[in-house]
Amino acid sequence: MKVTVSRKAHFNAAHRLYREDWSMAKNDAVFGKCNNPNYHGHNYELIASVTGSVDPVTGFVIDVKVLKDLIKIHVEDAFDHKNLNLDVKDFKDINPTAENIAIAIHNRLLPHISTGLELSITLYETPRNFVTYDGKS
Amino acid sequence: MKVTVSRKAHFNAAHRLYREDWSMAKNDAVFGKCNNPNYHGHNYELIASVTGSVDPVTGFVIDVKVLKDLIKIHVEDAFDHKNLNLDVKDFKDINPTAENIAIAIHNRLLPHISTGLELSITLYETPRNFVTYDGKS
Amino acid sequence: MKVTVSRKAHFNAAHRLYREDWSMAKNDAVFGKCNNPNYHGHNYELIASVTGSVDPVTGFVIDVKVLKDLIKIHVEDAFDHKNLNLDVKDFKDINPTAENIAIAIHNRLLPHISTGLELSITLYETPRNFVTYDGKS
Amino acid sequence: MKVTVSRKAHFNAAHRLYREDWSMAKNDAVFGKCNNPNYHGHNYELIASVTGSVDPVTGFVIDVKVLKDLIKIHVEDAFDHKNLNLDVKDFKDINPTAENIAIAIHNRLLPHISTGLELSITLYETPRNFVTYDGKS
Amino acid sequence: MKVTVSRKAHFNAAHRLYREDWSMAKNDAVFGKCNNPNYHGHNYELIASVTGSVDPVTGFVIDVKVLKDLIKIHVEDAFDHKNLNLDVKDFKDINPTAENIAIAIHNRLLPHISTGLELSITLYETPRNFVTYDGKS
Amino acid sequence: MKVTVSRKAHFNAAHRLYREDWSMAKNDAVFGKCNNPNYHGHNYELIASVTGSVDPVTGFVIDVKVLKDLIKIHVEDAFDHKNLNLDVKDFKDINPTAENIAIAIHNRLLPHISTGLELSITLYETPRNFVTYDGKS
Repeated sequence: MKVTVSRKAHFNAAHRLYREDWSMAKNDAVFGKCNNPNYHGHNYELIASVTGSVDPVTGFVIDVKVLKDLIKIHVEDAFDHKNLNLDVKDFKDINPTAENIAIAIHNRLLPHISTGLELSITLYETPRNFVTYDGKS
Repeated sequence: MKVTVSRKAHFNAAHRLYREDWSMAKNDAVFGKCNNPNYHGHNYELIASVTGSVDPVTGFVIDVKVLKDLIKIHVEDAFDHKNLNLDVKDFKDINPTAENIAIAIHNRLLPHISTGLELSITLYETPRNFVTYDGKS
Repeated sequence: MKVTVSRKAHFNAAHRLYREDWSMAKNDAVFGKCNNPNYHGHNYELIASVTGSVDPVTGFVIDVKVLKDLIKIHVEDAFDHKNLNLDVKDFKDINPTAENIAIAIHNRLLPHISTGLELSITLYETPRNFVTYDGKS
Repeated sequence: MKVTVSRKAHFNAAHRLYREDWSMAKNDAVFGKCNNPNYHGHNYELIASVTGSVDPVTGFVIDVKVLKDLIKIHVEDAFDHKNLNLDVKDFKDINPTAENIAIAIHNRLLPHISTGLELSITLYETPRNFVTYDGKS
Repeated sequence: MKVTVSRKAHFNAAHRLYREDWSMAKNDAVFGKCNNPNYHGHNYELIASVTGSVDPVTGFVIDVKVLKDLIKIHVEDAFDHKNLNLDVKDFKDINPTAENIAIAIHNRLLPHISTGLELSITLYETPRNFVTYDGKS
Repeated sequence: MKVTVSRKAHFNAAHRLYREDWSMAKNDAVFGKCNNPNYHGHNYELIASVTGSVDPVTGFVIDVKVLKDLIKIHVEDAFDHKNLNLDVKDFKDINPTAENIAIAIHNRLLPHISTGLELSITLYETPRNFVTYDGKS
């Protein structure tokens, strides 16, 4: 029996969407207000979901405290109260769109999830905009 | 890498669930309070979710501003502050149940979504009742 | 020691904002989309708040089950799945704006609240629009 | 055309996570604060989701009032205001983890869902921890 | 200029409402399902609100990190994953109703709030039931 | 009869809490992670509440569309997708704490609210931290 266990977490960060190889006018046309050179920011709400078989001994797929700590160490400590463009190496050469942030979080957490478990990341950039990435193509 | 991008939107509308070819008694038996001849209404919360590959140039699957505008033009302008039975042609011959409203919204948005992207619609009729339709059978 | 006890409830209804003694053009100018002659509707979320002293025997200001039942009998049964303009006598001669609905709910519940307790009504017409009325002037 | 219809419900319960065949120290190590011998508790939020074809006569996959009543009879009446370990037979020999509670709810509801419909259960143990089970392996 | 600063927090606990000096029948009549001898439980959501003048040097009424830590030490560590009747001395001789829990939290936090600041406690027992206590009579 | 009409709005912004006349060490000690020189950010949720008598002609205290437009023009257009420290003159000489942002919003909106109406501002910096300012001392 496969069950999905999900944990919500939260971080606040500043970001800017733009490409250095584009003019300001082209960046404005494509990224609009998100291209503010002085940055803007969000309260990102994160849901990390782990799918696998229930351990008959404990009744857990994964101990949610373990999942909470993995998110704390590998995502919150790295992203919270940071400028994603300037302070977080994941976005050195890549735009910190919600899509790319979700992929980066997936890449950070997956190595710490036991083999045989699947991982999906849902990231709310605002209460009205969110993305989901499960590592599949 | 496939990511799903979701946008929430909102419209208010009146509706009534009934069949003209049924008696009032049968309509009451099947549709209960939803068969009030003077209509009742809801704040519908809509989530439109688009799945596809991330564009490596922009970092977007779809520009969420584009998605927001498509919902505005094709759904909100057509449904908001309307009587779904009387004012919206989609429900001329079909009951405006949550299921059918979600299908109608899918039908309205899909032609405007790029080929290769998948579309799923979640519609909250109340905070406790909602439906999801992704066009699959 | 005074404590406020609050209970949330919910009803769905259709309504229209307009004045019969005004032209359609004037009603449109003042009430906009809310003047749709075929009505529109909302999921109304209601919070009834009762303030008073804590009974040292029970630890209650008011038994929240009693408050829940009062709301059920005097508000939900009267308003839920109704057309406020056509089906509810409170709005026979008065516009069912959020302000007036909150006042009507206050008038309906207050006679059933024990003397010495204060009553306040908060009514959400949408998740973004709400009003509060506590009977004071 | 397949649509998923979801209904949210709610129950409050006490529980304790532990194994009788383990020492208190081992139970503390594995289950942490959830091993409090005097129990703790939660407001469980439940989403039951039913997937199937839309009936062209009614526009329903399943009448949400029917789904609401099934949840009331088979889940809320059995679990609400109960001690899951002591009062609910489903957990006589099994730990009431969120995973196992979701499976138990699935087992209780599935026999009452029409053949050809699929059932998925999402259970929030807290606003930040939740699980999903759809009966698949 | 007075501003109110609010911080939300969370704890899970079991409780039972009853009086030892009453018969089981009388306790059932007054407290209903809340009188389950094996306890039930809730996810309590707490809002602690502090009102006072804005410090012109920092722009703070109270550092919200300080408020967060006060709630952690004096409320969460004492109440979380506990049986309020058996494990928390505040309720040794008093029923753990939402009203009394809010008063107990107010009594625990107030001595640690600077003179000149006012404190109000809002406690959600469920998403639909909540109480507010500000220490005034 | 006085009623309070509230409207929710939303803006995203970057900010940093610090004093130029303090050392980095002192700023870190007082403002912690909020002193990141590269900024961080939030999704600010705003509630503007207007209290006054209900107009017997319209049933409105204030037309919520008017209130929505005032917030759009005087707050959202000025603060959304901005760096509050660098892009918004209100915070040229004042720390953009939640307290000071709420006061700035009050100052921006009050001149546009009719005499005789009272204005209160609630500002959520995160879902767990919020402030309220009503212009009173």
